[in-house]
Amino acid sequence: MKRTPSMPVDRALGVTAPAGFRAGAAAVGVKKLSEKPDVGLLACETDAQAAAVFTQNKVCAAPVAVCREHLAARRTMRGIVANSGNANACTGRRGLADARAMARLAAAQIGCPEQAVLVASTGVIGRLMPMEKVAAGIERAAGTLARGPEADLAFARAIITTDTRPKQAGVRFRLRGRTVTVAGTTKGVGMIAPNMATTLGFITTDAPVRAALLRKILRRAADATYNCLTVDGHTSTNDTLVILASGLAMDGAATPAATPIAEGSAEAAALEAAVLAVCESLARQIADDGEGATKTIEILVTGAAGDAEARRAAGAIANSPLVKTAFFGEDPNWGRIVSAAGYAGISSGPETMRLALGGLVIFSRGTPVEADAARLKAVMKAHDITVHLDLGAGKGTARYLTCDFSYDYVKINAEYTT
Amino acid sequence: MKRTPSMPVDRALGVTAPAGFRAGAAAVGVKKLSEKPDVGLLACETDAQAAAVFTQNKVCAAPVAVCREHLAARRTMRGIVANSGNANACTGRRGLADARAMARLAAAQIGCPEQAVLVASTGVIGRLMPMEKVAAGIERAAGTLARGPEADLAFARAIITTDTRPKQAGVRFRLRGRTVTVAGTTKGVGMIAPNMATTLGFITTDAPVRAALLRKILRRAADATYNCLTVDGHTSTNDTLVILASGLAMDGAATPAATPIAEGSAEAAALEAAVLAVCESLARQIADDGEGATKTIEILVTGAAGDAEARRAAGAIANSPLVKTAFFGEDPNWGRIVSAAGYAGISSGPETMRLALGGLVIFSRGTPVEADAARLKAVMKAHDITVHLDLGAGKGTARYLTCDFSYDYVKINAEYTT
Repeated sequence: MKRTPSMPVDRALGVTAPAGFRAGAAAVGVKKLSEKPDVGLLACETDAQAAAVFTQNKVCAAPVAVCREHLAARRTMRGIVANSGNANACTGRRGLADARAMARLAAAQIGCPEQAVLVASTGVIGRLMPMEKVAAGIERAAGTLARGPEADLAFARAIITTDTRPKQAGVRFRLRGRTVTVAGTTKGVGMIAPNMATTLGFITTDAPVRAALLRKILRRAADATYNCLTVDGHTSTNDTLVILASGLAMDGAATPAATPIAEGSAEAAALEAAVLAVCESLARQIADDGEGATKTIEILVTGAAGDAEARRAAGAIANSPLVKTAFFGEDPNWGRIVSAAGYAGISSGPETMRLALGGLVIFSRGTPVEADAARLKAVMKAHDITVHLDLGAGKGTARYLTCDFSYDYVKINAEYTT
Repeated sequence: MKRTPSMPVDRALGVTAPAGFRAGAAAVGVKKLSEKPDVGLLACETDAQAAAVFTQNKVCAAPVAVCREHLAARRTMRGIVANSGNANACTGRRGLADARAMARLAAAQIGCPEQAVLVASTGVIGRLMPMEKVAAGIERAAGTLARGPEADLAFARAIITTDTRPKQAGVRFRLRGRTVTVAGTTKGVGMIAPNMATTLGFITTDAPVRAALLRKILRRAADATYNCLTVDGHTSTNDTLVILASGLAMDGAATPAATPIAEGSAEAAALEAAVLAVCESLARQIADDGEGATKTIEILVTGAAGDAEARRAAGAIANSPLVKTAFFGEDPNWGRIVSAAGYAGISSGPETMRLALGGLVIFSRGTPVEADAARLKAVMKAHDITVHLDLGAGKGTARYLTCDFSYDYVKINAEYTT
């Protein structure tokens, strides 16, 4: 339930806002529209403490397999190479070799071991990587490595697919007299569902923090944000969310902080709040830009027998095509919401339920409530709509973010590869 | 896997084809388009042995609650009253009283106890029943009770909602020198998903069979057909599938058979095959007529670690909006199929998988297979498409029926109540 960011988020901050990071990008035609950037490179000038969460899909892409290997071998990373337009998934041994080659080529540019580079791909499944193009892209992206808003946006643009806009979020806070920055970028906007973590997300920070603590913070933040987000209920083969920490924050001091943040300290709490705020903003930007979406819908389930039950109910509501098309039609067809909760394996029935749309109660204790028609219409017309279902059975709660289901979702996905 | 009917199905046979049953219908404006029939009555001249399966949704409608009560109290039924246009779900105590009133009014027409009538409703959730209209409808429907194709179709039309056509299926077979008939009708075509059993379905037979055996036969048949069918993954509040057996089959003999069919006998197997064939045909008719559907897709999963795993994989594929929109676009975007299986909680990975579309292998052992482009295009252009995914891990199998996802699905469901 701790989804409301307590720290203000700045969407102008990208992956090079924290000290120690440079980013670059190139357009080489992996995406069909070749003028769009499709290869991105992120480099850290020092060994960055690293943590990541990946797709739970059994059919996982080659780059995910390579990332897992590299993270099993070392706790620090020097960079990330990413591409859009081709997922390098379901590509067998050749795909694995291609992902390794991407790491090797990027490592040569950065000047680090192959295992110190993570690889991420997104796009069509089942096509071999056009490695000549990708190799050229890595070299060209390396030539553009820089810090600043332009570099941030170039990298953010290189990882998007059906997204209509790049997505960034950053948070700044004070730590031991220094300004620490956490910033990230992500892409959507189809094949979006738990679990993990959904799609690609890259977060950087200059906080002094070890990988072990970073892993815990990232897992909890992903669980409260990316793992409560669905566009279409389809968990991808490539989901990757990475955080790299350079430890180089110095603004306001002469040197970086020497001692890593201790687990359980106030400093750790501040860092976690910052990572959570960045993840929350990035997840919401994905929902806002969901394929064909015209509305962002926040599903709040309370009064469940437990948090897991609340999460099942919220997920069933968020994934129901009937619920999503009703929101697209601005139709307060709330029976679909209540019945979606009903098939989610909950322990209670309608007798104890209470449902509110935008704060307006329309169903209570098993019976419809006559709501003010004009107010209900206004709720349904808004871009952001909150659905609050109280099951009246316990203390379990959950929140989910989703979007509506429109003609354009069908159009985008009926015409994606052809 | 026993989905291929071994008995030929005749779609001209409806609920009054078996001896002992009469049906009637009326149009009273429960549906918005008031010229369409929306109240149906089915009456048996004798005490019919009865069995039913219902929705597993925790939010279950008043008529489902009343049916469960009546079936707990008695093994035989004299009739069914059904309406479309209003689901009588989420309507509290008033809804329960209305459902009981429907049974009472129908029982008065048939001349039987209130508890000998089952009640089924389908339509919008959360609206109180317009009982004046419904009461008039029951009386008028009773006035039209008759046998024959016209009565069958009138009843079949009275229960449909967004269906574009009525649905019927019947099977005839010989038993002890008599012709026995099993016939039924059903409606779709949105809010269709396991489990139970989906939507409304009414099957009649004149076979001499006791309720206890009928229950087992119906449960197994529903499990292999209705429970492997999805249009949109949304389990309804009103799903009801009933079978009534009059025992009055006489064609070819002077009197009905005196002894009920024995469990485990060849006669029981014949009856089960007939019920299965009728359920299979009705389920396929729902998929064919799925909201906005342009294609029927049969998902066959083999080689799973067990049948349950195969079913999870087939269900995930059948419910994925990305898979369904790709079929609408006639786009062989098979990565979506493989990745849907991947997030269904299977034990194996892509290395052992083999995927064929319409018999054409396009993915094998983790690697894409170059398929003949013209043949693949022809497969995707067809109305009926078979997807066969072999997981290569065991002997588990499952079959699922679904349809594609089109602009019209969104249109129908964005505009349903308003």
